[in-house]
Amino acid sequence: MPKTLHVFGHQNPDTDTIASAIAWANYLNELHAGSKEKFAQPNRLGEPNRETQWVLERWGVELPALIEDVTGLDVELVDHNEFIQSAKGIENANIKGIIDHHRIAGCQTDKPLYINMEPIGSTASIIYKKYEQAHMTIDRATAGILLSALLSDTLVLTSPTTTDEDKTIAESLAHIAGVDIQTYGKEMLVAGSSLEGYTPSDIYGMDRKKFEFGKIISYVGQVFTFDTAPVLAQKAELLSAMQDYIDQNGATLGVLAITDLETNNSTMIVTGADVALAQKAFNFTGDEADLPGVVSRKSQIVPPLTSAAQ
Amino acid sequence: MPKTLHVFGHQNPDTDTIASAIAWANYLNELHAGSKEKFAQPNRLGEPNRETQWVLERWGVELPALIEDVTGLDVELVDHNEFIQSAKGIENANIKGIIDHHRIAGCQTDKPLYINMEPIGSTASIIYKKYEQAHMTIDRATAGILLSALLSDTLVLTSPTTTDEDKTIAESLAHIAGVDIQTYGKEMLVAGSSLEGYTPSDIYGMDRKKFEFGKIISYVGQVFTFDTAPVLAQKAELLSAMQDYIDQNGATLGVLAITDLETNNSTMIVTGADVALAQKAFNFTGDEADLPGVVSRKSQIVPPLTSAAQ
Repeated sequence: MPKTLHVFGHQNPDTDTIASAIAWANYLNELHAGSKEKFAQPNRLGEPNRETQWVLERWGVELPALIEDVTGLDVELVDHNEFIQSAKGIENANIKGIIDHHRIAGCQTDKPLYINMEPIGSTASIIYKKYEQAHMTIDRATAGILLSALLSDTLVLTSPTTTDEDKTIAESLAHIAGVDIQTYGKEMLVAGSSLEGYTPSDIYGMDRKKFEFGKIISYVGQVFTFDTAPVLAQKAELLSAMQDYIDQNGATLGVLAITDLETNNSTMIVTGADVALAQKAFNFTGDEADLPGVVSRKSQIVPPLTSAAQ
Repeated sequence: MPKTLHVFGHQNPDTDTIASAIAWANYLNELHAGSKEKFAQPNRLGEPNRETQWVLERWGVELPALIEDVTGLDVELVDHNEFIQSAKGIENANIKGIIDHHRIAGCQTDKPLYINMEPIGSTASIIYKKYEQAHMTIDRATAGILLSALLSDTLVLTSPTTTDEDKTIAESLAHIAGVDIQTYGKEMLVAGSSLEGYTPSDIYGMDRKKFEFGKIISYVGQVFTFDTAPVLAQKAELLSAMQDYIDQNGATLGVLAITDLETNNSTMIVTGADVALAQKAFNFTGDEADLPGVVSRKSQIVPPLTSAAQ
């Protein structure tokens, strides 16, 4: 029996995390084809969001299996490296490799390993480059999900994290997938951003990550939608759901960014004993801030919070 | 004025750290040639050892300038990633990239960056691959110092960290440098391993790294020599110098591995309030242990100490 290598992205998976896990497992299996010693299997750490479900269905790709505890397993991490965003038991897993495009933090191994990180729009972009370097063919479905991941993380190549290289990669992937970037991107975002039928608790949990800003533990959620009004109309219920969540999870700052996909502006709402940190970081009073031009949690929301805590 | 990017390896520099800093700065300058926006400069965090001095002289390569505090600077780290092995002010530097072949630990940034790590014999091996990928020519002197780094870190391709890829890379580099691997490797090790004229304090400090095993702070030194007898004859003086050093640096475990380059065996001597950790890790009593076949601090000395602390 070949030893299984489990490949997965972060908790609260998004399209980049799921597509990267699938494509990277494919890559590893192609790379080791013939060796029969290892078998890479994509996994996920939670339920896929509406956009990811739409993407997998659109390209006829199977949803990876859920994995709950990775203690003692051989693993590769995609689209994250911080243990607090990873699987249960990650401290006692055997981490063989990491492919990611975030900051590095809170990640520790006993042994040397493969790490490939770049300041680029998506983990999918790095995986595309690895396929190219290895002169490996990308099939149409894999190109489709990698393109979706790149367009999802960069809001169709408009986010400030988008590089010139991302644009070239998107063109190559769109060519293989046989779609138009703008048409397909808009279709995916509209399909994925409908918040109809979700509870306030669902909305906060949709894409929520845990951060430690100095000694303050915080959960920062973000939702993207073409229709922010019905979300903001539930502000009181959202704040209450956020407060419940942070109380139950030992945090003192709950943050939710509601990002308008049409205007590329965000509204941030905050709750908890440490709201002063967010108020200091973004210079506002009360529980709501308008953040014009802010679309990226990673490069526009987390860094000011990190700085304000120092 | 182009902004300077400072490229450096770990404290107590060895040949891989110095050669990698020089070759990686060359690579970055070639890559950005024409842009005039950045200028990469190799640096070092301490005095070169005897071997590194011999290597630089042999290939006619200039010793990089010492750098003491990197607060606020743009930097790239080679051959290390743990902040406790890095420059003063590293927490407040702007880390643009990391090239390394060690475990990942105690490394944190605010922003995404380039990281290229592999479980391979030397950082020089990764840098060679980056030159190849970019179709960049490696000149004879650069090939000479990269080969030296690879042969130094792998004890002429005999250490258990040596991969098949390292062997192929060594052949390519030796071809460009115009030397024979075995003849050149032996010549370098003999020239570099003479411990004549060094004090016990010098010997412990020659290649010493700080580690945290659980709550125990430890300094682990290693020396390689073709003639261990005169070193072991000074055991009492060495233990006393080690105890002084750990006392002055807030540590409770001093370890020194004396590795015989002829036999590939090590003798380990230990001192401090927490010698029990080393005794547990390597199953011995007293202050001295024979470690047959042990040549690698990274893969044969640090992992048992890490495990024993858990």
